[in-house]
Amino acid sequence: MAEILEPREREPEQGSPEQGYGLPDELHREIEEALDAGDVGQVERLLGTLHLADLADLLERLHPDDRKTVVGIVRPTLRLDPDLLAYLSEDVRDELLTLLEPEELAAALAELDSDDAFAVIENLEGDRRREVLANLPALDRRWAEESLSFPEYSAGRLMAREFVAVPMFWTVGKTIDYLRVAENLPDEFYDIFVVDPRYRPTGDVRISKILRSKRSVRLADLVAEEIRTVPATMDQEEVAFLFRQYDLTSAPVVDDAGRLIGVITVDDIVDVINEEAEDDILKLGGVIEDDLYRDVIETSRARFAWLGVNLVTAVIASGVIAMFQSTIDQLVALAVLMPIVASMGGNAGTQSLTVVVRALATKELSDRNARRVMWKEMLVGCVNGLLFAAIAGAIAALWFGDMILGVVIGLAMIATLIVAGLSGALIPVVLEKVKVDPAVASGVFLTTVTDVVGFFTFLGLAAWILL
Amino acid sequence: MAEILEPREREPEQGSPEQGYGLPDELHREIEEALDAGDVGQVERLLGTLHLADLADLLERLHPDDRKTVVGIVRPTLRLDPDLLAYLSEDVRDELLTLLEPEELAAALAELDSDDAFAVIENLEGDRRREVLANLPALDRRWAEESLSFPEYSAGRLMAREFVAVPMFWTVGKTIDYLRVAENLPDEFYDIFVVDPRYRPTGDVRISKILRSKRSVRLADLVAEEIRTVPATMDQEEVAFLFRQYDLTSAPVVDDAGRLIGVITVDDIVDVINEEAEDDILKLGGVIEDDLYRDVIETSRARFAWLGVNLVTAVIASGVIAMFQSTIDQLVALAVLMPIVASMGGNAGTQSLTVVVRALATKELSDRNARRVMWKEMLVGCVNGLLFAAIAGAIAALWFGDMILGVVIGLAMIATLIVAGLSGALIPVVLEKVKVDPAVASGVFLTTVTDVVGFFTFLGLAAWILL
Repeated sequence: MAEILEPREREPEQGSPEQGYGLPDELHREIEEALDAGDVGQVERLLGTLHLADLADLLERLHPDDRKTVVGIVRPTLRLDPDLLAYLSEDVRDELLTLLEPEELAAALAELDSDDAFAVIENLEGDRRREVLANLPALDRRWAEESLSFPEYSAGRLMAREFVAVPMFWTVGKTIDYLRVAENLPDEFYDIFVVDPRYRPTGDVRISKILRSKRSVRLADLVAEEIRTVPATMDQEEVAFLFRQYDLTSAPVVDDAGRLIGVITVDDIVDVINEEAEDDILKLGGVIEDDLYRDVIETSRARFAWLGVNLVTAVIASGVIAMFQSTIDQLVALAVLMPIVASMGGNAGTQSLTVVVRALATKELSDRNARRVMWKEMLVGCVNGLLFAAIAGAIAALWFGDMILGVVIGLAMIATLIVAGLSGALIPVVLEKVKVDPAVASGVFLTTVTDVVGFFTFLGLAAWILL
Repeated sequence: MAEILEPREREPEQGSPEQGYGLPDELHREIEEALDAGDVGQVERLLGTLHLADLADLLERLHPDDRKTVVGIVRPTLRLDPDLLAYLSEDVRDELLTLLEPEELAAALAELDSDDAFAVIENLEGDRRREVLANLPALDRRWAEESLSFPEYSAGRLMAREFVAVPMFWTVGKTIDYLRVAENLPDEFYDIFVVDPRYRPTGDVRISKILRSKRSVRLADLVAEEIRTVPATMDQEEVAFLFRQYDLTSAPVVDDAGRLIGVITVDDIVDVINEEAEDDILKLGGVIEDDLYRDVIETSRARFAWLGVNLVTAVIASGVIAMFQSTIDQLVALAVLMPIVASMGGNAGTQSLTVVVRALATKELSDRNARRVMWKEMLVGCVNGLLFAAIAGAIAALWFGDMILGVVIGLAMIATLIVAGLSGALIPVVLEKVKVDPAVASGVFLTTVTDVVGFFTFLGLAAWILL
């Protein structure tokens, strides 16, 4: 820890440091009230106090009509602060972009870091994208076009083109001198890449090491032992894994020939990790795309497909029940109890499935341990199946005064929970093998299996043993 | 972008850069085979090629018995590389720690960054923690004790105590001179904090700015406009929100008096974001704690509670069905169709619930827009309710040749999906208000509601209209 040498009487010249932790509800309320009252001056004054990130949040949360009004107010300042574009969520940003002329948008993009600019450009449609590209400065345009040539969600789309690269034989002093005069460097950087004469990265020096070393020290002596280059075509999920796994702050992106063409920094990765986790959470819940800021009709349409698939599985389960109509007709208690088995199977299976889907996403599950995990999930199903067989069996026997009914539900419970554990682990692994996203499709297959097995074993055993 | 000046003929002196993207399955297999063959020399040779992060992954994935063997092999090198402790998952790390003497462990911890050391120490139990603390160097011990005085999952537990703080009136030159000689600075840092005479942070200078400025430039001219300090008691989820919201790379942690006592860097936040997302995913799936690396009995025990709660809700739903036993007795088709309504309600409700739980976790949902989101979810339930009423109604009418049965299932579908949408949005918001984790408890309440409403409306309407 650093000690303060000779603290002086002089107070810092800065204004009092502005503190803020997100958009305050109070301020949000005041702005909405000013909007309702049509008091543009007041809205403008309140907006002026907001950090761009919080302004972006406000825009996202407002009613679409109010959003238009606020965009009208912030539009002139947008030229001053194109960074607002980087903070907005996609849906709302696209809405805002439609209000700007191509020249105006190109001017804003030229001021952004190249990676933030790409993120906007890649979402533009055909003609508009061409117009905006045509209005960009030459270098930015070339960078943007190169970036767009890489697949969506790849490192090439994520990287910034501004970075610092120097030859290995330089000293700390020469590097610092260079940094003080060089142009077109990134605003902020954490690492300096050392490259060979063919511009292939051979090492990585943390800039804090440069700051702490004497001018005469050679970069070769500061370079980190190993460097992990990222091919431009690597999927962003893979890149995020590398950053998490090896605690990276930035990583060099290379082209097919291994030449350094860009850099990915940890702040981009924070967003990727967040997006990927969000994606998995939503998909597991049956929501294919983030729809918080969409309107009712769009949201309903997006969710319809998933519910439709679920209707099919529900009808399949009903088909199983229909096979045993005469059994139920003879003993209506079966209709009362049958959802218990299916529901327990669904829940136990979802537990296994969640753990396995997550382990696949974080690469904790490999071919080597997949079989062990499946075996374990089956045993867990067996253990809890036995326990809940006893509990549910007792409940059923006491409720309907029928010992055998208790045995039937118990046996069905054991069978269903074992199958649930096994299929909860097996289904995502198989889907991953055949390149289907396990987060989005596993749930449907699982509930089909657990419903069919739950109803079939319970009603089948009842038909066989009881009647 | 930097251009290379005078590329020279000389190749870098480093060995070829080591590339690696996670633990290769092939290597994992070879190591397991060597373990099976009892060939310790071969295991040791293979382990030597691994990055510590990948070695940690290997340990996690091995069978507990093999893990012991490998720990025996890596134990001597642990003294050389205490960083292995920082890479291991908690369960496996604790297993490894039990093998070390307190002195041995304390020596390893003293070499770690303070934040990584705290993460190990906070997991030690009573006596062992005291023994290890007693063996730490004095400053490390004091830091560890202070850190432990803050609540779990707070900024105070997460922060590192090594940071760079200098007075505002210093120049770039003086700062660089200080950094070159000062001791006890962090290995790596991204920001230098500027403090006032009372050691309160008043500004934050990115070190890349220092590197790019002439020696005569004053820090006051480089300081970022605003600084967001983090109180040591702030919850880590809040801290992660700040980093994401304002794209921070490091943040100063302050005590009650506003004095700088530590720093949190973005690499810690990557882990927090990952953990919190993982937590939400697992809890939504009914898994309270990550159990991938636990054994069958522990896993079964941990999951039992959740299944027990679900058994209660399933029995409640059965109770509703039991009210209509005579109705089902008269028309067994009702038993066949009733799970369809309940299942669709459960799925539609889960969609709303997932979006709302996620929005609460990312602070996208505030008091100001909660009512709008609830209203929207209800309308989405209404739209999809109408659509699926038509589809399910047609299926039921055709299947059983009974028009009125189709109308009954349609009406029940509309009512259930509206209630599902509303409760999917309402339940998490209410739970958050009463300080219950919405991710863990919402699902139970939701399925109880959708099952009860689904069975009750369908069977009730059938009793009323059909019979």
